[in-house]
Amino acid sequence: SLQEVCKSRAVAMPTVSRVAVCGGTHGNELAGIYLVREMLKKRADGTEPVSVVTVMSNSRAAQLCVRYVETDLNRCFTRAASSGAAGSDTSPYEMIRSQELNALLGPKASAQAVDLLCDLHNTTANTGLCLITYSDHDWICLHICKHLQAPMHKPMEIGPQPHGVVRSAIFSAMQEGVQLMMDWICQFNSGRFSATNPCRNLFAVCFHGLRNIDYPRDSETHVITAAVHPDLQDRDFCLLHPGDPMFLCFSGETLRYRGKEALYPFFINEGAYYEKGVALSLARKRRVQIPSVRSETLR
Amino acid sequence: SLQEVCKSRAVAMPTVSRVAVCGGTHGNELAGIYLVREMLKKRADGTEPVSVVTVMSNSRAAQLCVRYVETDLNRCFTRAASSGAAGSDTSPYEMIRSQELNALLGPKASAQAVDLLCDLHNTTANTGLCLITYSDHDWICLHICKHLQAPMHKPMEIGPQPHGVVRSAIFSAMQEGVQLMMDWICQFNSGRFSATNPCRNLFAVCFHGLRNIDYPRDSETHVITAAVHPDLQDRDFCLLHPGDPMFLCFSGETLRYRGKEALYPFFINEGAYYEKGVALSLARKRRVQIPSVRSETLR
Repeated sequence: SLQEVCKSRAVAMPTVSRVAVCGGTHGNELAGIYLVREMLKKRADGTEPVSVVTVMSNSRAAQLCVRYVETDLNRCFTRAASSGAAGSDTSPYEMIRSQELNALLGPKASAQAVDLLCDLHNTTANTGLCLITYSDHDWICLHICKHLQAPMHKPMEIGPQPHGVVRSAIFSAMQEGVQLMMDWICQFNSGRFSATNPCRNLFAVCFHGLRNIDYPRDSETHVITAAVHPDLQDRDFCLLHPGDPMFLCFSGETLRYRGKEALYPFFINEGAYYEKGVALSLARKRRVQIPSVRSETLR
Repeated sequence: SLQEVCKSRAVAMPTVSRVAVCGGTHGNELAGIYLVREMLKKRADGTEPVSVVTVMSNSRAAQLCVRYVETDLNRCFTRAASSGAAGSDTSPYEMIRSQELNALLGPKASAQAVDLLCDLHNTTANTGLCLITYSDHDWICLHICKHLQAPMHKPMEIGPQPHGVVRSAIFSAMQEGVQLMMDWICQFNSGRFSATNPCRNLFAVCFHGLRNIDYPRDSETHVITAAVHPDLQDRDFCLLHPGDPMFLCFSGETLRYRGKEALYPFFINEGAYYEKGVALSLARKRRVQIPSVRSETLR
């Protein structure tokens, strides 16, 4: 039967039996923080189909409602840092915390590590609900991405969320996204798939980040001299053509995109990236084929 | 003639000869900070019709891109604080700075003080361009408010601006607002008024703040348990009726406005007010009659 053919073609993948959901990796990104707090209220009773570890990643920064206390925790998870070699009494709080998290959820790339880690972030950019993965062969992540898109046909115009603010619609979208992820994992583990996840091959639209563009700055003071142009602001993942307006100087001058290739901007005007020298990132759009997957171990 | 009648009815007010424009009173409200930086680049050449003092109020906080370093500067301008009695080596930076500003622009309520001070702020709430004054008899301020509304017939849907972010459209609106204020002052001082400022009496719609409403909080931890309801978010200055949704708990429950009087919410979900226990403020709408004004001293 067709079903048999599909089954035989599906890529066998290990069961996703341990999942981590982390919030507050940046302590002023409030939707993830309140979602994790809400999840922590619900005690596991052992009947859950999947074991979920819920973690407040940087509770000290969350307490103070700042991105980080000493250094950006999300830049501490390199192997070198996690190995413990860099740890000492004088290490920044976040460096020590990254090692604690690695011990709790990892060690990274080891057999004991959780099978899937979902780290919840917010941005002041108008990205909608956006999944970031570091490989276009991460079939599980890409399947989850497709599963999240299914009930959300319209672009999620939920607007940007300021840091230090929680907007109810963004909290709800994030909550729904985590629930849909868990639903997909349960279906995958059980070997059953719904009609929304047919056995034929799927395609996912991905954006492959190429480079960052900084704000125009004063050559002496390094103070920014322009803001993202109003025509570009909030148009994350919309094609930017050579010659399109990119910045509007505070003096009134328009600066245009000088690249030779039309590309897709994202993380446009993210508040936390001013200090990192990033006004926006540019990506190439790709259509990635995702094979059907089946769990190796049926329950 | 009709002109003569109008002139005789106009209230005589002192000329507005010294104006202060301040930005960065809160160091992460970037539109005002970049506008003041831009204004400071343009050196006065002595031919200006009005003397403008441009001030970066809290440059240390602006440098760090935080609201304040030790305490909220905008809560330091009480007479007691400005008198110098509270100043000492151990005083918070902002307390000392408030006394410096009072010496520069005041002393408050003295004859040497500037005639008008325009302090530029940003909010994460969807207020549009919004003027705050502390008296409904401040005819100069109310006339300026009317003058700003004239070319902006449509509600200014420029959206909320996150702290630590500058959005070009909001920068431009603020710049235009300051320019219109200066135009009005020049016309007032010169004794001439344009057709947009007729000699008949005017009415201004004002919102008189009555009380603040805090987020629902956990009685033990004081952590918030709800966000502003999606139906209320971004609807600053839109009438809120008894029974209308006000908060959506993270647990899913809707909490409604329990007041007896329909009122106008503003500063809805302002990021800096979480720590102040303010989810929104409620105001009564008033129609204030503004008499025609004429400058006492014609140039």
